[in-house]
Amino acid sequence: MFEREVTVLRLGHRPGRDDRMTTHVGLTARALGADRVVLSTDASHSRDTITDITDRFGGPFTVETTDNPKRLVSSFEGTIAHLTMYGLPVQSVEDDLRATTDPLLVVVGAEKVPFDVYDRADFNVAVTNQPHSEVAGLAVFLDRLFDGRELEQEWTDADRRVIPKETGKKVVPTSDAE
Amino acid sequence: MFEREVTVLRLGHRPGRDDRMTTHVGLTARALGADRVVLSTDASHSRDTITDITDRFGGPFTVETTDNPKRLVSSFEGTIAHLTMYGLPVQSVEDDLRATTDPLLVVVGAEKVPFDVYDRADFNVAVTNQPHSEVAGLAVFLDRLFDGRELEQEWTDADRRVIPKETGKKVVPTSDAE
Repeated sequence: MFEREVTVLRLGHRPGRDDRMTTHVGLTARALGADRVVLSTDASHSRDTITDITDRFGGPFTVETTDNPKRLVSSFEGTIAHLTMYGLPVQSVEDDLRATTDPLLVVVGAEKVPFDVYDRADFNVAVTNQPHSEVAGLAVFLDRLFDGRELEQEWTDADRRVIPKETGKKVVPTSDAE
Repeated sequence: MFEREVTVLRLGHRPGRDDRMTTHVGLTARALGADRVVLSTDASHSRDTITDITDRFGGPFTVETTDNPKRLVSSFEGTIAHLTMYGLPVQSVEDDLRATTDPLLVVVGAEKVPFDVYDRADFNVAVTNQPHSEVAGLAVFLDRLFDGRELEQEWTDADRRVIPKETGKKVVPTSDAE
C-alpha cells in the first residue's frame, strides 16, 4: 500500500482449530495496510475467505500460501519483525523499524515458534509482554508502523463500500459511491 | 488502570465456536489497559482462561459474566462506544472520546448486533470501514484511547514476569524480578 512492501507471514496453522484466527490475521493484515499475507498451504479455508473479502471490498492485497514458511523466513531479502510477547517493547523499536524502506516481513506465530525465527528476526517485538492475541498484536503493530496512515487508505476494484455513519449501516455499490 | 474506568462488553457468544475469539477479546482488554471484561454467562471456558492468566501474570483486572448484556448496555451510567465497521472513523472521534473521564463501556460484537446498541451508543466507532477482526479493532481502539500509556502499565500480584529480550525468552518469578 505504501512506499514499502509489507508482508505478513502466519506461522503455524492447525486446520479447523485455527481457521478463524488465521482468517482474522489475514483480514487484519489487509485492513491495516499490509500488501500481502502468506499462509500455510493447509489454511485453504482462510485463504478463500480473505480472497472473497478482497474481491468484494477491494485491494490491492494478495493472499499466498506456502508449504515451507521456514524457507521464506531464511531467504527473505529485507527486514524481519517477529511479534512475540518475549520481545522488545514495540514503543522502543518502532522508530528503528520505520527508519528504512526495505521490504518488511512481519511474522505472526500460532503455536510454538522455532528458535530459528527468533534468531533470524531483525526485531523480536512485543506488544506488551503479556499474553493476549496475535491478532491484537498485529493490529497495534501495523497501526504504529504506518503511524495511522493506513486508516485513510483508498481501495480499488471494490464492488461495495461502507459509508461511515453515526448510527446504523450504510453500504453502497462502488459505482454509486464515487 | 487509569483515572477512568473502562469496561469491555463482549456481546454475543456461541459456546465452542466462539471460545477462542471471546478469550482473545478478554485477554486483549486486560493487556491493553481496560479494567474489566463482561462476557456472556455461557462463556465460562473463556472466563476461566482469562482469570487464570490474570492470576499468573497479574492485575488488577476483573472478569464478569452476565445473562442480560442488553440490560448492561441500557442501564450503563457513562459513555458507550460500540465498535463496528459501519461507524465513524476512530481517528475522527478519539479526541471526543478522551474529552471526558466518565466510565466508558466498549461494546465488541460477535454475531449481528441488535439495533438498540447502535442507538444507545454515544459513539459507533470504526477501526477502518473494512471487515477484519473484533480483536484487532479493540486493540487499536484501546491503544489510541490510552495514547500508548497502557504499554507502560505495571502489574500487581503476578507470580511471574516476562523480561523483554532481543532474542529468546526470559520469564522470572516476580520475587526475583523486583
